Amino acid sequence: MDITDIAQRVSAGERRALARAITLVESGRADHRVLAGQLLAALPQDRQALRIGLSGTPGVGKSTFIESFGMMLIRQGLRVAVLAVDPSSSRSGGSILGDKTRMDLLSREADAFIRPSPSQTHLGGVARRSREAVRLCEAAGFDVVLIETVGVGQSETVVAEMSDLFLLLLAPAGGDELQGVKRGIMEMADIILVNKADGDLKPAAVRTQADYAGALRLLRKRPQDPDGYPLAMAVSALQENGLAEAWESMTALVNWRRDEGFWDKTRAAQARYWFEEDVKQRLLAQLQGAEARAALAALGDKVAEGDVDPSAAAQSFVEGLGR
Amino acid sequence: MDITDIAQRVSAGERRALARAITLVESGRADHRVLAGQLLAALPQDRQALRIGLSGTPGVGKSTFIESFGMMLIRQGLRVAVLAVDPSSSRSGGSILGDKTRMDLLSREADAFIRPSPSQTHLGGVARRSREAVRLCEAAGFDVVLIETVGVGQSETVVAEMSDLFLLLLAPAGGDELQGVKRGIMEMADIILVNKADGDLKPAAVRTQADYAGALRLLRKRPQDPDGYPLAMAVSALQENGLAEAWESMTALVNWRRDEGFWDKTRAAQARYWFEEDVKQRLLAQLQGAEARAALAALGDKVAEGDVDPSAAAQSFVEGLGR
Repeated sequence: MDITDIAQRVSAGERRALARAITLVESGRADHRVLAGQLLAALPQDRQALRIGLSGTPGVGKSTFIESFGMMLIRQGLRVAVLAVDPSSSRSGGSILGDKTRMDLLSREADAFIRPSPSQTHLGGVARRSREAVRLCEAAGFDVVLIETVGVGQSETVVAEMSDLFLLLLAPAGGDELQGVKRGIMEMADIILVNKADGDLKPAAVRTQADYAGALRLLRKRPQDPDGYPLAMAVSALQENGLAEAWESMTALVNWRRDEGFWDKTRAAQARYWFEEDVKQRLLAQLQGAEARAALAALGDKVAEGDVDPSAAAQSFVEGLGR
Repeated sequence: MDITDIAQRVSAGERRALARAITLVESGRADHRVLAGQLLAALPQDRQALRIGLSGTPGVGKSTFIESFGMMLIRQGLRVAVLAVDPSSSRSGGSILGDKTRMDLLSREADAFIRPSPSQTHLGGVARRSREAVRLCEAAGFDVVLIETVGVGQSETVVAEMSDLFLLLLAPAGGDELQGVKRGIMEMADIILVNKADGDLKPAAVRTQADYAGALRLLRKRPQDPDGYPLAMAVSALQENGLAEAWESMTALVNWRRDEGFWDKTRAAQARYWFEEDVKQRLLAQLQGAEARAALAALGDKVAEGDVDPSAAAQSFVEGLGR
């Protein structure tokens, strides 16, 4: 594999080269990891896309939203990449974004690039792979990188930590119906979009939007938020209503953060975060071998049954690792 | 130190022996750690208190609540221990619970035991110490252990993971005033108590209670919650209004969880969680020495400035650790 050649073609925005480069960074093989490191170092470092994290459970219309929102951006002359972070994809029996036909128009655009989630691995590995895929898309000159995830485990945190802004897509809730927002996700959202504000569901969407606007006001203001943010809006991806307003709110937020220095500060903090996480991952990798996992589970059973104290068990386990 | 003697005296409920035992488990000295392990193993393992986690920022009336609530429990014939988890205590210039005079009545009761937060250390260490202090209080025959924390960093998670139920204490909010609930804390609360529902603040407290009741309904139902939980209530610790109702709600919740098997299941899961956390802490302890921290910070600066890729930096750092 000619790394110089592939780096040049990625930099020129060639989608096939980009796809190949992402396959390379997704590989766990040691020789591929070396090549991936060389490739990342050979790419231009000064290109930045707007990285938009997007979370929403199945059924909220995420694909339709990405299709409509992505097409709108492309009509404005922007190049749009879509990536997925889904550590559960093989477990749940189907990768999100595995089926490009759900984004029929976008997938046929020359200025769009859509990439399904890598196959299942532990979240730390997914995070590293996705982070590197985002960097490849930036190097390939994309203006906007949408990073899609579902509400599973810690995947939102992973996506939020590699995004410049984070969207939470919700469906309208009926009167007493529980919305089912995973506890703790609201904390990450910069903008909550209540989708399906069309037809019969419109009143419910507007009411749900008002409920979330109220709930957001009960949370503490973060320094990186100008007045009025985080905000909740009602949109219809199907009828393409509210998408322009949502994009305006995003650019207003991002411009404010750039002007106030939060853009650079956040990116620097994220890079440091990923470095420290990567160090911890590498230290904790000792627990991921089959043998270590079996020993951890067996001792964990004894601890859960009350036979051994957690600290004492941990001490004997770590001493055993060193042997 | 005679471990057999101190274990017997703790088991007999002697408060001075309990205080000494907690001092022992709080110590970081290697010889003390060995003795602490012997002591924990020598204590009765079959006593369980109701462990109640309690979070609330300064100013919400936490001390007044603990005083009134604790006195109510004591009048019902229960023995009450109060512990604090506050990893920030020396940084913020004053340990919470450092001043027992804020709980004047409770601190003079023979059936109460109040223990300030251990002095500052990293959160992993605070967690281990607090967990062991809770076990000592249980072995000493206390019926209720209140574990107090403030809204700082991850301390709520730590407390929630060692509690059977988790209370969030809030003050009434004015009309447009932001309540300032740290994002993500609401997810842990079993019961939100809006304090100061007395005098001029009563209408605001009732309105705030309704706001949070609404916000809680927007969150996903957890399996360990019966219908109607998590719930929000308005109370007045000062006038002792609503405290009996709050206690009723707690016991109803706890009884339901016992009957449905969630009590044992949660305790077993918590023990396993602490075992695995303890293992990770011990592996990550390599990063806590002064030299390692300085190297991590220096390399982190380079990563933040964009000079080095996070993964590449992490790899070279971990290789350096092995040398």
